[in-house]
Amino acid sequence: MTARTWTTRADNRAARLARAAQALGPRLRGKRVPSEAITELLEAVIEPHDRVCLEGNNQKQADFLAQALVRLDPQRVHDLHMVQSVLALPEHLDLFELGIASRLDFSFSGPQGARLAKLVSERRIQIGAIHTYLELFARYFVDLTPQVALVAAHAADAEGNLYTGPNTEDTPAIVEATAFSGGIVIAQVNELLDDGSALPRIDVPAGWVSFVVKAPRPNVIEPLFTRDPAQISEIQVLMAMMAIKGIYAEYGVQRLNHGIGFDTAAIELLLPTYGESLGLKGRICRHWALNPHPALIPAIEAGWVESIHSFGSELGMEDYIRARSDVFFTGPDGSLRSNRAFCQAAGHYACDLFIGSTLQMDLDGNSSTATLGRITGFGGAPNMGADARGRRHASPAWLQAGREARQGRSGAAGTPRGQKLVVQMVETFREHMQPAFVERLDAWQLAEQSGMALPPIMIYGDDVSHVLTEQGIANLLLCRSDEEREQAIRGVAGYTAVGLARDERMVENLRDRGVIRRPQDLGIDPRQATRNLLAARSMRDLVRASGGLYEPPKRFRNW
Amino acid sequence: MTARTWTTRADNRAARLARAAQALGPRLRGKRVPSEAITELLEAVIEPHDRVCLEGNNQKQADFLAQALVRLDPQRVHDLHMVQSVLALPEHLDLFELGIASRLDFSFSGPQGARLAKLVSERRIQIGAIHTYLELFARYFVDLTPQVALVAAHAADAEGNLYTGPNTEDTPAIVEATAFSGGIVIAQVNELLDDGSALPRIDVPAGWVSFVVKAPRPNVIEPLFTRDPAQISEIQVLMAMMAIKGIYAEYGVQRLNHGIGFDTAAIELLLPTYGESLGLKGRICRHWALNPHPALIPAIEAGWVESIHSFGSELGMEDYIRARSDVFFTGPDGSLRSNRAFCQAAGHYACDLFIGSTLQMDLDGNSSTATLGRITGFGGAPNMGADARGRRHASPAWLQAGREARQGRSGAAGTPRGQKLVVQMVETFREHMQPAFVERLDAWQLAEQSGMALPPIMIYGDDVSHVLTEQGIANLLLCRSDEEREQAIRGVAGYTAVGLARDERMVENLRDRGVIRRPQDLGIDPRQATRNLLAARSMRDLVRASGGLYEPPKRFRNW
Repeated sequence: MTARTWTTRADNRAARLARAAQALGPRLRGKRVPSEAITELLEAVIEPHDRVCLEGNNQKQADFLAQALVRLDPQRVHDLHMVQSVLALPEHLDLFELGIASRLDFSFSGPQGARLAKLVSERRIQIGAIHTYLELFARYFVDLTPQVALVAAHAADAEGNLYTGPNTEDTPAIVEATAFSGGIVIAQVNELLDDGSALPRIDVPAGWVSFVVKAPRPNVIEPLFTRDPAQISEIQVLMAMMAIKGIYAEYGVQRLNHGIGFDTAAIELLLPTYGESLGLKGRICRHWALNPHPALIPAIEAGWVESIHSFGSELGMEDYIRARSDVFFTGPDGSLRSNRAFCQAAGHYACDLFIGSTLQMDLDGNSSTATLGRITGFGGAPNMGADARGRRHASPAWLQAGREARQGRSGAAGTPRGQKLVVQMVETFREHMQPAFVERLDAWQLAEQSGMALPPIMIYGDDVSHVLTEQGIANLLLCRSDEEREQAIRGVAGYTAVGLARDERMVENLRDRGVIRRPQDLGIDPRQATRNLLAARSMRDLVRASGGLYEPPKRFRNW
Repeated sequence: MTARTWTTRADNRAARLARAAQALGPRLRGKRVPSEAITELLEAVIEPHDRVCLEGNNQKQADFLAQALVRLDPQRVHDLHMVQSVLALPEHLDLFELGIASRLDFSFSGPQGARLAKLVSERRIQIGAIHTYLELFARYFVDLTPQVALVAAHAADAEGNLYTGPNTEDTPAIVEATAFSGGIVIAQVNELLDDGSALPRIDVPAGWVSFVVKAPRPNVIEPLFTRDPAQISEIQVLMAMMAIKGIYAEYGVQRLNHGIGFDTAAIELLLPTYGESLGLKGRICRHWALNPHPALIPAIEAGWVESIHSFGSELGMEDYIRARSDVFFTGPDGSLRSNRAFCQAAGHYACDLFIGSTLQMDLDGNSSTATLGRITGFGGAPNMGADARGRRHASPAWLQAGREARQGRSGAAGTPRGQKLVVQMVETFREHMQPAFVERLDAWQLAEQSGMALPPIMIYGDDVSHVLTEQGIANLLLCRSDEEREQAIRGVAGYTAVGLARDERMVENLRDRGVIRRPQDLGIDPRQATRNLLAARSMRDLVRASGGLYEPPKRFRNW
């Protein structure tokens, strides 16, 4: 037996709290820190080499704390290991340029992807790994536990209880991992209530929070999931018709996830029109794991949607959500309770279908949004766009996909098992006439350049069930060899180089077998695919459909 | 646009609360309900056909609420749809016999498995599906959201805040899904604090809880994870040596999950002895997703373990956990904060290895604990014993397993990808000389008998990486055909009928290739495999190793 101490984490927390108390003196009232003392607080509680989770969500950002962090003295605070979902703000990378942080584990870097790649190539940042969200949360409880968490909430009461409002997002996962492992939790809030005032609801108990600070400005939130119907093209309408008739109806998909993008917005807007005309109401799309997409308003109003659980919220949807509490998860205060961890679990285990888009797909069906000169990560797509092999409950859609995938197979691969529907929906050419189908993903070269252990593939080909383009649907479940899969993909790749190199005879054979289905094979007349089919054709239509409850952010108020 | 109401759930909750207030009158003080009024409360708030989550965990049970539920008048309360993790108490099935409940979705039924099968065959219970835990939680947020949740906590304060103590387990997931969807949450507690008294910590905020009731007796908790080292056999020691040298060391497994059972308890007890002698300290087994197993005490004391996150707690480990807060996730009160949802996510996404046992394995490597006449479910095994295909972060163990699995493959199946190590550890014969290896799983017949859509397979063969018996290790990753896999399994199946039917030449060939490895191939002398290698050989040794901090439950105090 050693004489080691077993409470270093608790002792260390006590020492950090004592340093904060000393640095701030009477300016620290309970857990409340005045905003002008934030630098002193951070320098008192953060130690070099700490693992720090700076709440960078898909939507809300702990921006005040990010700005404070970049102002620290790198002589005192350096070599931080940042762990966070999203790199969204310039400050998230400034930290590395300034020498305050040196190591990074994350999920998604969207707009900062190019700058991130540059910093990596200059060896000013060391990437641990890119994760899917739930995977990163999981590691918070295993080997990436933060010593310090810097989070954002809407309000705090005098005791330090937190009210997140509709954008709860990652906060509960981050705070739980940090608070119960001897860490320090600092929350920036938009409102700090006086003694005795009660929050509309408590999302995080005060006992889990070390300090609260009122930010001078409300935290940044991005309306990431708002798509203006005016920008939906007729090709997208056609693809949405194929998705509804050729996949959703074919498998009877009741529970599903939609992400960001115009392709899926088109599907949402066709449910009450085209979907209704096919008699599908109540037969598909009843339960959703998705954010409160404005594009789903017409379908909700038409009674298509029984329930929605959300990762985060969406700006402008607050009053609508409050008035439609039968559909959304809401608190006694009427506002949404989102939760990215549970919604990702729902997307993984409780949904029969994931539909997403990509920038590139190769002939094995592997797809990636990673392109040269950018390191972006994949957010939730790998978690939801993978077969959930731990799933054991059956549904007709899952069983049918499983049957198709296992037909004619023997041994372990032939054991009856359900399978998730994973649909990649892409136009054959992206903007600037970039082909979506390629012989080789940029991901391979990117892996070599950045020294990654594996190419950054978003969704692996053997998890994809269907590829949907304006040319038709390729059902990869039915392919029985690598060659068939390749020709099925070429067969829907249109006039791209990959599509033009198809084996005509084999493609026609696949079409005869129903592996490839063109619009006409589905009984869809492309001439019908007009914008008139959309249940809303503008932002104004969406507002009208909501009975005036939806209030789009200013930049979308284009009428 | 319809004139439908969109607040039926909120209105319905208000109506239920009003009925409770009327039924209880002044006996309802805030959220506090006297225990003798529990029947009236439940009859007031539960409606026929409700989905009810009765907290039945792996360990703690809402037993008082279960007993109250079976006393309801089936004329008033009937056809409930029960959704719960574990069927542990007789009351969980009495509900169906009494006509109070009719439908069930669950994860595990352990001791009630035989009775459950009988009720199903008599058509007195309709099973929706068997789930893995995280899958069931996920459905709470999608299509199995409870209208009423009946949960167990250690204490509540006057406002209704809950303190779960170390066994938080499922409570946060259940309460969040119910409270934010217009449902009613009723908590039984062992202690109800007076006005003004504060809980040691708050695990669930009062705003999420509708009613609290003090149970006349503390809730039942099972010490499920306590294994008396005295019962570990020398065959188990041998198998544990093979696991450590042939798998853990071979792949450099740093992050892992162990479940229940003597096989893995033997591994835990060999780390500070055999593992130490191999120089493996710090190189394997640093981060764990597991409950506070008493058998891990010697390894913790010897400095092997950096962190443990837990699904639940373990009786008798309270003081030890408090004194070892560097290792366990604990609150400011010093007691464990467990969380089954996050720990299952950790087991799925943050661990490189799952090791478990089974009752039967077939020649494809499919395994199941389902046997004729019993419907037991699988708990967490499918979630952790499946390749996490959404995982994107690399580790040496995961990369090596992925390389082995993909060697020589082409197309989508050959795309570089990591893979989880999923080890099935079984003696070739179970008790009563039942062979662990069979030509055909009982699961197939069970599926026919019970009308299941798929045979209840716990872990599918194509997710298994290694089969470990006293005869050796079969590395299924390296098998290149169904036939090789079959012979690899036969090759470690010893004197079972399946083992005796092996093709000797092919098995020797697999051994030459390292697909099968015998103890001697690993440099392990079976004569060394004695109980002397165990770091603790009795419960008393465990207590001693803990410095007297571990206090085993009475039934284990055998000295």
